[in-house]
Amino acid sequence: MRIVRFEGPDGSPVYGEELAGGQARLLQGDPLAGLIPTGETLAVVRRLAPIEPVNIFCIGLNYRAHAEETGAPLPENPVVFMKPTTALNHPDSEIRLPACCVHGPEVDYEAELAVVIGKSATNVSEQDALDHVLGYSCANDVSARRWQKHGGGGQWVRGKSFDSFCPLGPVLVTADEIADPQVLPLRTRLNGRTMQEGHTSDMIFPVAKLIHLLSQDTTLLPGTVILTGTPPGVGFARNPPVYLAPGDRIEVEIEGIGVLANSVVAAHS
Amino acid sequence: MRIVRFEGPDGSPVYGEELAGGQARLLQGDPLAGLIPTGETLAVVRRLAPIEPVNIFCIGLNYRAHAEETGAPLPENPVVFMKPTTALNHPDSEIRLPACCVHGPEVDYEAELAVVIGKSATNVSEQDALDHVLGYSCANDVSARRWQKHGGGGQWVRGKSFDSFCPLGPVLVTADEIADPQVLPLRTRLNGRTMQEGHTSDMIFPVAKLIHLLSQDTTLLPGTVILTGTPPGVGFARNPPVYLAPGDRIEVEIEGIGVLANSVVAAHS
Repeated sequence: MRIVRFEGPDGSPVYGEELAGGQARLLQGDPLAGLIPTGETLAVVRRLAPIEPVNIFCIGLNYRAHAEETGAPLPENPVVFMKPTTALNHPDSEIRLPACCVHGPEVDYEAELAVVIGKSATNVSEQDALDHVLGYSCANDVSARRWQKHGGGGQWVRGKSFDSFCPLGPVLVTADEIADPQVLPLRTRLNGRTMQEGHTSDMIFPVAKLIHLLSQDTTLLPGTVILTGTPPGVGFARNPPVYLAPGDRIEVEIEGIGVLANSVVAAHS
Repeated sequence: MRIVRFEGPDGSPVYGEELAGGQARLLQGDPLAGLIPTGETLAVVRRLAPIEPVNIFCIGLNYRAHAEETGAPLPENPVVFMKPTTALNHPDSEIRLPACCVHGPEVDYEAELAVVIGKSATNVSEQDALDHVLGYSCANDVSARRWQKHGGGGQWVRGKSFDSFCPLGPVLVTADEIADPQVLPLRTRLNGRTMQEGHTSDMIFPVAKLIHLLSQDTTLLPGTVILTGTPPGVGFARNPPVYLAPGDRIEVEIEGIGVLANSVVAAHS
């Protein structure tokens, strides 16, 4: 099922099954507890991120070709960092360039396959790992590169955690519709120009292995979101570098899931 | 007020104002929405972490003397990382040594002043920052050193995020009782032996400055917990190194707050 979350008629979030033509079949409940059709059909006016994560884990350097473009050696274990849940952003909403990025452009895009955990996972085997997945979505791991590399003593969290830095959507495609998450082409377009072009088969640690490793002595609760790393073509590694600017439109597309589009504005603090 | 959270008679969490002799004056509500006395007094049988954090930010190398013992240069900006909320642990509960720490002892303690945000903070000045603090508690930033330094490609999150790795408590002391968070002696005892001994006046970035910097273009929601770094004396920097072992008892004490005590066991996966 293609699950969409959006603002219902009274402004509060509702879930629906996405239909053609901007419509959705209204569902009661939520994806973690269970969804029941109501029989009602609504127009999807304002989309929301399909889930409110309990924790957001992110994997760095998980595509061979991206690790190479950054000059980093291939990791022996997943490079794990986090975003706070406050970074969550919605489809078609604005990515806000932080006012504290004062030394010139530095905000970059990263197209990522997002995995949403549906069934609590602790010490799960690689073989059983995908049974814990509720579904998949697109994410943009927006990154302020100066803060990431120099503003946090080498720890990436600060540069990855600004408000609006985790767009998620446009839908949650349930796991039964994506039997193998390692066969998905993904790409980024900036103002219509393709910037990243990759394929989840290039992941150093595939989704099942990531869940296995992240769940070692660590509970991945239902609602945990894992951003699984980005393919090559990010802005800072280009020659000349490309950074997001006010007025830009950035799209993350994963085939079989959809297009996550966001505009870019300057934050006003 | 000294707020204690504990298991009520029916096993569900309740809040109370701590009284002498292991008793508490039962309170209705929660510390973020507001607490109202019920007039009832109960024995505190099983303490819980005083809050369930929405996000846990951690600051590395924030005490001059600790930065020196690790050999790291003094940071120009706070070194920011996170723990997932699933790492939360309770006073008097067990710290579980991960089964995936398979290459010998590596799990270390870090005594820290925990700051709990009570009023949403975005772009707050250093001067106004402490108005956003609900209160203070003790935390132990438990750290698996091999995973921290070598198991996550240089990113610390993996080694800091195992289940049980964030003991918090024993109480939340509201901000009105701690006018200045930079005058607090803190220490760690391992099986009764003092291992860390420090003072919050040694912080490179004091609490108000941390909140100011963390809130730049970033919303610190009520219920956000900030672990503010650790003084010298951690296990890995000792000669010979000291790591936690099953049967140990580790205590974090902050004067004016209390003693956060935890036992250590091996995890069984």
